[in-house]
Amino acid sequence: MGVAQALIRNKDWLASRVGTSFDLRKVLVKDLSKSRQLPLTAGVLTDDPDELLGDADIGLVVEVMGGYEPATGYIRRALESRKDVVTANKEVIAKFGPELLEVAQNSRRTLLFEGSVGAGIPIIGPLTKDLAANQIHSIYAIINGTTNFILSSMENHGMTRERSLELAQSLGYAEADPTNDVDGIDASYKLAILATLAFQSRVHPNQIFKEGIGRLDARDFLHAKELGYSIKSLAIAKKQAQGIEVRVHPALIPEDHMLAKVSGAFNAVAVEGDLAGNTVFIGQGAGQNPTTSAVLGDLVELGRNIVNESRPVGINLKDSNLPVRSMTELETMYYYRLTASDRPGVLSQISQVLGDLNISIASVIQKDSDPNNKTAELVITTHPAKEEAARKSVACLTALDVVEEINNLIRMEDLLA
Amino acid sequence: MGVAQALIRNKDWLASRVGTSFDLRKVLVKDLSKSRQLPLTAGVLTDDPDELLGDADIGLVVEVMGGYEPATGYIRRALESRKDVVTANKEVIAKFGPELLEVAQNSRRTLLFEGSVGAGIPIIGPLTKDLAANQIHSIYAIINGTTNFILSSMENHGMTRERSLELAQSLGYAEADPTNDVDGIDASYKLAILATLAFQSRVHPNQIFKEGIGRLDARDFLHAKELGYSIKSLAIAKKQAQGIEVRVHPALIPEDHMLAKVSGAFNAVAVEGDLAGNTVFIGQGAGQNPTTSAVLGDLVELGRNIVNESRPVGINLKDSNLPVRSMTELETMYYYRLTASDRPGVLSQISQVLGDLNISIASVIQKDSDPNNKTAELVITTHPAKEEAARKSVACLTALDVVEEINNLIRMEDLLA
Repeated sequence: MGVAQALIRNKDWLASRVGTSFDLRKVLVKDLSKSRQLPLTAGVLTDDPDELLGDADIGLVVEVMGGYEPATGYIRRALESRKDVVTANKEVIAKFGPELLEVAQNSRRTLLFEGSVGAGIPIIGPLTKDLAANQIHSIYAIINGTTNFILSSMENHGMTRERSLELAQSLGYAEADPTNDVDGIDASYKLAILATLAFQSRVHPNQIFKEGIGRLDARDFLHAKELGYSIKSLAIAKKQAQGIEVRVHPALIPEDHMLAKVSGAFNAVAVEGDLAGNTVFIGQGAGQNPTTSAVLGDLVELGRNIVNESRPVGINLKDSNLPVRSMTELETMYYYRLTASDRPGVLSQISQVLGDLNISIASVIQKDSDPNNKTAELVITTHPAKEEAARKSVACLTALDVVEEINNLIRMEDLLA
Repeated sequence: MGVAQALIRNKDWLASRVGTSFDLRKVLVKDLSKSRQLPLTAGVLTDDPDELLGDADIGLVVEVMGGYEPATGYIRRALESRKDVVTANKEVIAKFGPELLEVAQNSRRTLLFEGSVGAGIPIIGPLTKDLAANQIHSIYAIINGTTNFILSSMENHGMTRERSLELAQSLGYAEADPTNDVDGIDASYKLAILATLAFQSRVHPNQIFKEGIGRLDARDFLHAKELGYSIKSLAIAKKQAQGIEVRVHPALIPEDHMLAKVSGAFNAVAVEGDLAGNTVFIGQGAGQNPTTSAVLGDLVELGRNIVNESRPVGINLKDSNLPVRSMTELETMYYYRLTASDRPGVLSQISQVLGDLNISIASVIQKDSDPNNKTAELVITTHPAKEEAARKSVACLTALDVVEEINNLIRMEDLLA
């Protein structure tokens, strides 16, 4: 059920919750001729934005069109024309949220965007209100339903990545061109919003390191499982003495961690604060109904304030201008899967290379040998090491005669609880 | 860190988040002579409630004393004297919340109580705001840290219930007299608050069926695991055509369900709404820091409204007077553990008794035989049956010559996702 449909179908019920009713005045669409199931009064549907933005009688605009233009311009104009705005547009909020909040502030209007992150998962509200007294240390999130569905299928059903993507597409969990999802772009928008609010310091999506799921193989899931780990595409934000660390990439996480249990199209955001400790918010991170839930939640808040004759406090944002750390400074554990010659002395050469780069090995497992090629698959995990060193190690290891190929290098997150 | 300590220690930081600072004017205590670590100005500490409630300059009262009297009277008087009130008192809110919200409404003051359920887990906020547009179908919650710690210890470490309780006590997770926790009373207060808000219909804690964890044995956890289940003490509220179903009792739940992963002192609330679908909120359900997080979150909201020159919308409650269903009408699956004669024909007698009561068997496992007594332990699970029939079955089965004892009867919840 979309927002317009819910406003029509649940009108009386919403009125009873809010104390006043929402009157759907205009619905802006691209193509007037498209057939729609909405029982709209004549004249409500329009393809002219002026009919909506230029109408002084309209007090509230809901933007669910997606994309950053013309959506950003419409939102700005709506706020400047003294209309409250509710949006579920992650790209707009990630890229222009702070500016738009300022426009709202100056016009004494409210901009709400609960639906922009995690759809049905209440997270903007809890983060900015219930947890407002916490110094937030970190956020670990699974915030892309498409990749989580694909990775869950690979992990739980042993599917290839290609087959998992096809399944996701056939079920409507992935688009025909899944780039935005599988390459971490969508997640970076959501993480930018969460980090900006959590740390009260602006994080732009282009400051976020992004690595997609394109290198993950069914073998990685098997090896990870043997090591007691699951593989998830994580969006991570941490506040550290040196600045903010923000990154989106696949990671091995302990299989008994709560986030490892979040499967399929479900999403989750784990927040660590100084007072609350660890909190986790789980729900449907995408889809029409969950997004409608978030958008209508914002509408109910605005409506109740009107009935209460008060102005909503809105979302607070101070930019404390913390630096965003370079990814090369990251220190974490790593998982290597590589193909090497199946003969004595190989491991000594590999550990020599890693040792020279200050990378200390935590475990080595030799997997299947290939007697024809006289090669074996090695899985190596490390103690915390520098990202810069890990990156260098790939070239140095590949240069060894005994190493045929570095099949994968995945970061490992040693989450607690 | 308690609330007073946090208000002192984090004063500047809180002021930067809110836009104004909280000035700690009075701290009411029972015993003035007790030594305290708080750096309080002279005259702040008092044992006279009038110094606080009678002071017109005090605009906001935080109640974290616990117990329902004199706390209820103090809260009422504070609201009537036009002070806003923040409380973490589950007993007061469960028993008198609707009346106190009305007092607040009439005085145009605000009563907030995020800390009353789940301490560090944001749940009152999400339920009353972010999810406000949802028709809530059900709530499944693990909302007592003491029992969850005890059951997790029994399940994960094979401890006896007695030993688990001792451990919980030694770690400060259980009180010397654990009755309130292990008998489901504490959970019933929290469930009454959640159900009342979710269904917008008053549920009093004494309308909630309560069964403690006192009959659970280490053997039940072993058998449950074999069946693919975990055992948790659940607080359940459902809205049905015939009314509201509210109950607190141990239950077998599928071991791959998210709630089965919530271990130790962690708590969780799973909410199912018509739009958002399933959402789960996890965090530390008890303790000083998490409670302080919730109480200060409410304070921040009140402070921001003052800065914004607006009146908080507060918590909305309409009593739609839905009936609370009788527990005997419940229909669910059951797990029986019983000791019976180890000889042919026993199962036929047992299934005859159950069949006569319209209870259909789903699985039977014969566990260890005792060759001395010629008895065996039987574990029987059923398809959905009437609670009334299940209760009758205990007497009918015990009356059979071949049945020595019904060791346990536990409800099973077939949760999805």
